[in-house]
Amino acid sequence: MSGTGTRSWWGWGTTEDAVEGDELDAVVERARELAPHATLVDHPPPAVADLDLPEPRVAPPASLAKLCSTDPEDRAGHAHGKSFRDVVRNLHGDLRHVPDLVARPNTEPEVTDLLDWCAATGCAAIPYGGGSSVVGGVEPRFDGRPAVTIDLGCMDQVLETERTSRTARIQAGVLGPALEDQLRRHGLSLRHFPQSFAFSSLGGWLATRAGGHYATRLTHIDDMTEALRVVTPVGVSESRRLPGSGAGPSPDRLFLGSEGILGIITEAWVRLQDRPRWRAGTSMHFETFDDAVDATRAVVQSGLDPANCRLLDPAETFLNTGRSTAGGMLVLGFESADHPVDTYHRRAVELCRDHGGTVPDEVATEGAERPEAAWRSAFLRMPYRRDALARHAMIVETFETACTWDRFPALHQAITGAARRALRDVTGGGVLTCRFTHVYPDGPAPYYSVYAPGRWGSTVAQWDEIKTAVSEALLAHGGTITHHHAVGRDHRPWYDRQRPDPFASALTATKRTLDPAGVLNPGVLITPSEGSA
Amino acid sequence: MSGTGTRSWWGWGTTEDAVEGDELDAVVERARELAPHATLVDHPPPAVADLDLPEPRVAPPASLAKLCSTDPEDRAGHAHGKSFRDVVRNLHGDLRHVPDLVARPNTEPEVTDLLDWCAATGCAAIPYGGGSSVVGGVEPRFDGRPAVTIDLGCMDQVLETERTSRTARIQAGVLGPALEDQLRRHGLSLRHFPQSFAFSSLGGWLATRAGGHYATRLTHIDDMTEALRVVTPVGVSESRRLPGSGAGPSPDRLFLGSEGILGIITEAWVRLQDRPRWRAGTSMHFETFDDAVDATRAVVQSGLDPANCRLLDPAETFLNTGRSTAGGMLVLGFESADHPVDTYHRRAVELCRDHGGTVPDEVATEGAERPEAAWRSAFLRMPYRRDALARHAMIVETFETACTWDRFPALHQAITGAARRALRDVTGGGVLTCRFTHVYPDGPAPYYSVYAPGRWGSTVAQWDEIKTAVSEALLAHGGTITHHHAVGRDHRPWYDRQRPDPFASALTATKRTLDPAGVLNPGVLITPSEGSA
Repeated sequence: MSGTGTRSWWGWGTTEDAVEGDELDAVVERARELAPHATLVDHPPPAVADLDLPEPRVAPPASLAKLCSTDPEDRAGHAHGKSFRDVVRNLHGDLRHVPDLVARPNTEPEVTDLLDWCAATGCAAIPYGGGSSVVGGVEPRFDGRPAVTIDLGCMDQVLETERTSRTARIQAGVLGPALEDQLRRHGLSLRHFPQSFAFSSLGGWLATRAGGHYATRLTHIDDMTEALRVVTPVGVSESRRLPGSGAGPSPDRLFLGSEGILGIITEAWVRLQDRPRWRAGTSMHFETFDDAVDATRAVVQSGLDPANCRLLDPAETFLNTGRSTAGGMLVLGFESADHPVDTYHRRAVELCRDHGGTVPDEVATEGAERPEAAWRSAFLRMPYRRDALARHAMIVETFETACTWDRFPALHQAITGAARRALRDVTGGGVLTCRFTHVYPDGPAPYYSVYAPGRWGSTVAQWDEIKTAVSEALLAHGGTITHHHAVGRDHRPWYDRQRPDPFASALTATKRTLDPAGVLNPGVLITPSEGSA
Repeated sequence: MSGTGTRSWWGWGTTEDAVEGDELDAVVERARELAPHATLVDHPPPAVADLDLPEPRVAPPASLAKLCSTDPEDRAGHAHGKSFRDVVRNLHGDLRHVPDLVARPNTEPEVTDLLDWCAATGCAAIPYGGGSSVVGGVEPRFDGRPAVTIDLGCMDQVLETERTSRTARIQAGVLGPALEDQLRRHGLSLRHFPQSFAFSSLGGWLATRAGGHYATRLTHIDDMTEALRVVTPVGVSESRRLPGSGAGPSPDRLFLGSEGILGIITEAWVRLQDRPRWRAGTSMHFETFDDAVDATRAVVQSGLDPANCRLLDPAETFLNTGRSTAGGMLVLGFESADHPVDTYHRRAVELCRDHGGTVPDEVATEGAERPEAAWRSAFLRMPYRRDALARHAMIVETFETACTWDRFPALHQAITGAARRALRDVTGGGVLTCRFTHVYPDGPAPYYSVYAPGRWGSTVAQWDEIKTAVSEALLAHGGTITHHHAVGRDHRPWYDRQRPDPFASALTATKRTLDPAGVLNPGVLITPSEGSA
């Protein structure tokens, strides 16, 4: 999970960490079990030199030239995010929409200068953090305008740390590991660990309302945001550092989730935590998935606030841990920097037992962190394994939602039905798994993974058909098109239907006001024509 | 704290609950101790018949006539909120801005019809819940337009209760007690208890981002909001019931805190809790206020999540409990519907002891709720006592803010300095007290009370001078002009300086889009001219 190494232009993370050797053999073997008829031929990525990228259509002025790159690997590496469809298109050398320039500002005035230049010349500007979007959020897929990707990667410093209030002022371009490294020396942590942690940025988390690894409470970056600095085309917006305020609608909540269409977040004051000293955790097994769901709900409604409360269905349990369970497994974890957590941990286990939960002897680890650590390791390797499987024409992708507990049974049934029908029609069959990545007192955030054998050359179209089927199902059953993957360009058809119309009008009016030339990230959240002056 | 009885047109709550007899004697006696030279002559309110209200300038169309009242007591009772300056102006019969009509819709279509009629005739519409604004939020103080106050009081039903997800769909006009009465039969509670609870409404809480009685975590109505229905002049905005979502900026967060300028909230799905069964609490005393502040910070940063964590400075402690402390008192309370809370309670007490806190024998009440109950009773009587003192020409008012812990010492010093100078200059002296109504890991929400002898006929101007001095001080030292009292019309000068300019532009653009005729609550949050088409 290091942020160093050679970034892969086509796939997840670094080339050094790609799946190889024994791990690759095991991953392919597992795929063969899931899809016995799959051919599983490896399709390596093309060389960047063979991509035949179009020439850049714009050249920066002399004053900005030193910030801008036209290096083909830079441009290819910034063309797509990191979804399955992004990776597969890269593997096919299908880069239809490539930024003309990749700009790397070092300071906020340089961000302003870049936006001003884009507005003056009719270029679009795409804010770019770690590039881990899985919804087409950083892809210059819009009208024929030239595109400048503004990569904040050089703005990666923790600028101030305030120990008394446990807050820090941090530049938006910092990636997860560098952020935590800089906080560690102060004994503090943001404790925001999305799966993309190693290759996603603070600014990206803020712009997409990211959800962290923790399953309850302090998981959304929204709640850890004390203040924001945002460069908009009409000026810098800076909110006050406040622990809470009732002065009008929250300015920060307008920019949180705005996905780069209203401005570029350059800095944030974030709320930190002391590093945990006490931990307890248990993995509970269940006889039925319904029991497991009820137990999970009981725990999250109890007010015990586990740091981790992650339910895996039987297929997900088997694929991730090799264990067979009739009803699935709930990974429970408690942690604290201040006090032992055994009392609350025991009560959570008791609540699970009330719903038929059992603790297999070998996974009972009160006081230790083994299941959490094991889960975390598999969790962080998943995107690399996904890439290896994508090369072998497997369709491997995820989708996620959230709904209230009362709606979950019907939503889950509709989604599994739609997915299985689509898998059968499109691929002849495949595997669908479900876990809850986050749970709230009023509902879970179910996260589904699809594994199916594809036809090389068609796996993007095959996936798109499956994705459409499940998106229709979840929208019809009260879900959200995204709990923590954002909207980008790919989720637009469903987001547009989910969003209240007056709010769409308000967002469009805001866009016109803050970005009158319609420079910023066209096509994301609202359509470019709506956002143009 | 009953919602029944005869509502006072000029002061807080019901006439039946006004301060009288022994309580009045005690309140006046306490005032005499605080202000030995005060004359303390009682000035009873005028009769409504003597108010000489202007004739209504508009008449509703026949279709809406049955919803509209021109009754003088209705109009007088809806002219002001319930701040000190509202009450005193009422006592003087100074009602310069009175609604022409008070409309009471029974249904959402009637709300729409009323807004349409206002837009067609050039009337302003003032959304009105419980009328407990202390910031001029419901007062028709603006350009010469006729004003229709839309009182949601008839829309007061819990429409659906969903036990599995612990949520309910509730009409916005319901006042606190009626809301809790309807939820109690399901074993559920919103547990949102602002001081105004008995005479404030769900819709008002939502529109002003109210803070509840609880000191940590689930105190802001924002966090209890699952979905909203809002009638805007361009249509109804309805968000999805979702436990969490990352689909764009939150639509609900735009309307939360919008104070009636973007639409009228008619319904909300809110997140409920089971009623608590376990409680523990202690009141800790401290040698210095600095120690008490440090202890409070330690507790709120510990993750123990007390339901109550309310620090009173020595003057506040004495006035509210009669106890003398050198450094103040911290009221700690824990509660749970699921499990005993003694372990965490003991740890919180230990953290306080680490900062020199002591437990006077007579207030140690582990397992009981005595300090919480005593505090709560005094807390709910405060507005009535304020009215009694206002009649006796005492200046009795509060102001509040929030800031980060690192900034609190300088902010507190600046505020107390500014307040004491203003009190000396304006009234010859008085008493200033401080408590923390809410605390967060990154900072407290300090709440100040002023008691000073005024000159009858000048107490509003005297208060305004004090308020200006302290508002300047808190804004200069990193505070917010309001933590949970909203902005209304009275906080505008400071809110306008606190709010980021690009956000002001966004809010104005949103207002123009959702309320093109500029009908809704002119002058609140943004100026009418900005909001007009």
